[in-house]
Amino acid sequence: MERHINGVKSSESQALVAEPEKCSPAGSFDVNSSTADEQVAESFIRQAMEIIVDEAVKKATNVQEKVCEWHSPEQLKKLLDLELRDGGEAESEILQRCRDAIRYSVKTSHPRFFNQLYAGMEPYSMVASFIAEAVKTNLYTYEVAPVFTLMEDAVLRKMIKVIGWEEGGDGIFNPGGSLSNMYAVNLARYRYCPDFKEVGMFSAPRLVILTSQECHYSISKGAALMGIGTKNVYTVPTDERGRMIPSALEEKIMLAKSEGAVPFMVNATAGTTVLGAFDPIDEIADICEKHNLWLHVDACWGGAAIMSKKHKHLLKGIHRVDSVAWNPHKMLMASLQCSAFLVRDKTSLLQHCHSARASYLFQQDKFYDVSYDTGDKSVQCSRKPDAFKFWLMWKALGSRELEQRVDRALAMARYLAEEIKKREGFRLVLEPEYANVCFWYLPPSMRNLPESPELWKKLHTVAPVVKQRMMKKGSMMVGYQPLGEKANFFRMVVISPQVSRQDLDFVLNEIHNLGKDL
Amino acid sequence: MERHINGVKSSESQALVAEPEKCSPAGSFDVNSSTADEQVAESFIRQAMEIIVDEAVKKATNVQEKVCEWHSPEQLKKLLDLELRDGGEAESEILQRCRDAIRYSVKTSHPRFFNQLYAGMEPYSMVASFIAEAVKTNLYTYEVAPVFTLMEDAVLRKMIKVIGWEEGGDGIFNPGGSLSNMYAVNLARYRYCPDFKEVGMFSAPRLVILTSQECHYSISKGAALMGIGTKNVYTVPTDERGRMIPSALEEKIMLAKSEGAVPFMVNATAGTTVLGAFDPIDEIADICEKHNLWLHVDACWGGAAIMSKKHKHLLKGIHRVDSVAWNPHKMLMASLQCSAFLVRDKTSLLQHCHSARASYLFQQDKFYDVSYDTGDKSVQCSRKPDAFKFWLMWKALGSRELEQRVDRALAMARYLAEEIKKREGFRLVLEPEYANVCFWYLPPSMRNLPESPELWKKLHTVAPVVKQRMMKKGSMMVGYQPLGEKANFFRMVVISPQVSRQDLDFVLNEIHNLGKDL
Repeated sequence: MERHINGVKSSESQALVAEPEKCSPAGSFDVNSSTADEQVAESFIRQAMEIIVDEAVKKATNVQEKVCEWHSPEQLKKLLDLELRDGGEAESEILQRCRDAIRYSVKTSHPRFFNQLYAGMEPYSMVASFIAEAVKTNLYTYEVAPVFTLMEDAVLRKMIKVIGWEEGGDGIFNPGGSLSNMYAVNLARYRYCPDFKEVGMFSAPRLVILTSQECHYSISKGAALMGIGTKNVYTVPTDERGRMIPSALEEKIMLAKSEGAVPFMVNATAGTTVLGAFDPIDEIADICEKHNLWLHVDACWGGAAIMSKKHKHLLKGIHRVDSVAWNPHKMLMASLQCSAFLVRDKTSLLQHCHSARASYLFQQDKFYDVSYDTGDKSVQCSRKPDAFKFWLMWKALGSRELEQRVDRALAMARYLAEEIKKREGFRLVLEPEYANVCFWYLPPSMRNLPESPELWKKLHTVAPVVKQRMMKKGSMMVGYQPLGEKANFFRMVVISPQVSRQDLDFVLNEIHNLGKDL
Repeated sequence: MERHINGVKSSESQALVAEPEKCSPAGSFDVNSSTADEQVAESFIRQAMEIIVDEAVKKATNVQEKVCEWHSPEQLKKLLDLELRDGGEAESEILQRCRDAIRYSVKTSHPRFFNQLYAGMEPYSMVASFIAEAVKTNLYTYEVAPVFTLMEDAVLRKMIKVIGWEEGGDGIFNPGGSLSNMYAVNLARYRYCPDFKEVGMFSAPRLVILTSQECHYSISKGAALMGIGTKNVYTVPTDERGRMIPSALEEKIMLAKSEGAVPFMVNATAGTTVLGAFDPIDEIADICEKHNLWLHVDACWGGAAIMSKKHKHLLKGIHRVDSVAWNPHKMLMASLQCSAFLVRDKTSLLQHCHSARASYLFQQDKFYDVSYDTGDKSVQCSRKPDAFKFWLMWKALGSRELEQRVDRALAMARYLAEEIKKREGFRLVLEPEYANVCFWYLPPSMRNLPESPELWKKLHTVAPVVKQRMMKKGSMMVGYQPLGEKANFFRMVVISPQVSRQDLDFVLNEIHNLGKDL
């Protein structure tokens, strides 16, 4: 009887119980020998790895290649043959499907991909993510994830140290910054009234979260999910640079109180999604202390600045806050996802707030220190070892190189902003203070028009067309969006150290080439 | 000026803006040529891939190797040198760290790993997970994830078809079954009263969720997170096999109503975590229809049975329910994580319940059909393309091989149960109806003692000691837990096709060898 690797056909396995006489007793065959089937699996994995290196690493980062090969959903469905059938496919077909999946995917590692708040190829983190997938485990108990449990702990401690919480803290990695922000809301609510965990909010006073109008939408999503309601997220006006106005925050707090509601937390944003604005944490912390409010900082995007001596001032006051969400998968380029939630509390609030003490997983009669079973701090059960992706990268680069990465990204943004100011037809939305460079492109036909609602209405249509053209050409990917009353504008974010000035010049030239006829 | 790959030191990059005169104008150097630095990255990835195949694939699945190399947290911290420093490390050191991370991790792919509801090595899904990591994107818009968006759609449609929702449905992949269950709670609540999304639950009647006492703890965690409260999760008694008693469900519904509370959903479990019990969905559906309650089925573990003509009867009635959570990463062996949430609704409830319409991401003036931008159905922003891991595997194996996988796993469980009945000192907790085989091991010293609380108290201490010994020896990993009044017992779950009868015989022999002196 052979040992079977999954995925390899075996008629014998079907006969397992029906025909026991066919089975040899234990020990009568060599369980050590690798069978042909295991070799098939290994050979497949090796061939696929070659494809990954060739297509998703080398080709995907080659500036001469396209950023994307655009097809409409209908066209792409045909190209991919998506249907799942009764019969399986041969190895050669599956390898072709691997090639196709890469081919038709957007090359986010390409030096001309600027569409999101992540970009570029990070070899150490990528390798760590492969290892995490191959090792295939969950981060709930030390028992099944000893290495990753300790690495998560080490990374969290280091991040806490960098933030400047001298007395320490606690934390957990989550699948995305949205969940990290929701953890903050839940912890703040738990601190306000731990009874809600058991009895719910049915007889609670109306709770209010305060956040700037530029905050990430996960605050609203979290309020909806947690039974607080999106209308109880009070948005605080921002200044001309997109930063929360502290006096306006205090007014909103007083407003909520005057309505008989209970403000219980403030969310400050360090690096807003579109403008890259940093709310003034220190001033907000003063207000939160005065009103005894939980202060959370959504530093998913801007947290990286703390690695830089030159730019950490953007986060001044962060050592005073109650919790922080920080995604190393954004500017620091850890593999997706890598999102830390950090909390200054030292009373196991994370554990108390989320624990359910499942007896099948978190047995208390284990032979090791069960405080290393960190899974009950989470609202998840299965949880990926995302911290490892940051740990390995940090080991390889050291804090100094992480600092350089941030400094370089911001220097590139600075360069781009200066270029935009020099060029006819380009106009900055505002001077960047972080890596976000927001600007309009005015085609020649609009350059001599007077500033008027009509101009802005026309301008609003430019970015979507330029975007469409760049994607169909595959030359680059840059995001655009409206913001409040502002017409559609481009948002460039430089992250990858592979990006050169030439790429930035290319972006501006290409926008002009694609949009000059509009 | 060279193009820099991240992670490679560059003194030039520091001077980017300060010394513009150093920069060549665009076009004066060959942007196409691959630099030495890119080669360094590629070479590192290739070497690391060799290590992954050798250590995490070949060695990790070799039955002659240990399942784990146990070290206490204190010992392991020393072995791993976890500290993150200012300076980076050389490539050779990082490669050694890769080897160590694999070496000290538990080998969940090993044929003698039975500790969780996932196990074994699945080459197709593993390769898909590598591709997903290398391609590095998020599943919020078609724009940045065209391939994975369509694949998720194809997989969801196929799963919906298999479930038997003839009129279709909707769905989304989530980071774990716990979140899928929470989605069910949120959708059920939204259907009951969509206003809660905006105004919260402060003036709502007390809402009640009904679920069996054997259900997964994520229902409680979800109730806590969503402001419903753990006390408003009413647990319904189960029969001797761990299945919800329908008449008891109806009693609890009436109880909640008599208290003035509002029952709004029932969670039925298809494959409980410990016993592998299946709640009688058809009977529960009758009750839910009568009382107009949302019926969710947590089929994270048991959903796989639906792939088998022989075993799908366990899920009889599932075509009638409102939503299903099903994790292909468990019995079907997709890479972690791969968790689908499926909903029978055809009115875009998922979208309405969760959407926040972020204008920077979900622009409505895009040039393609924005119904393919599925991200706003999620409470996450960044979301991994987990469906791809199931899609590629399904393509390679076909439905037939997936069916065989389930049939074989259940046949193995059957074999193990019969062996247990034959062997002295082993006692089944109950006859398995799915893949969970639960049993006690009585060392010789306890075999002739009368059934008494003292015996059970003694027996309760056996499994933890046997577990400690198996882990320190590294010979296998089998879970144990108490359940209600039942003393600690072992729970064996066979999943991987690599597992043979010999491995199961080994498990029983080894438990005896490790525990016979107790």
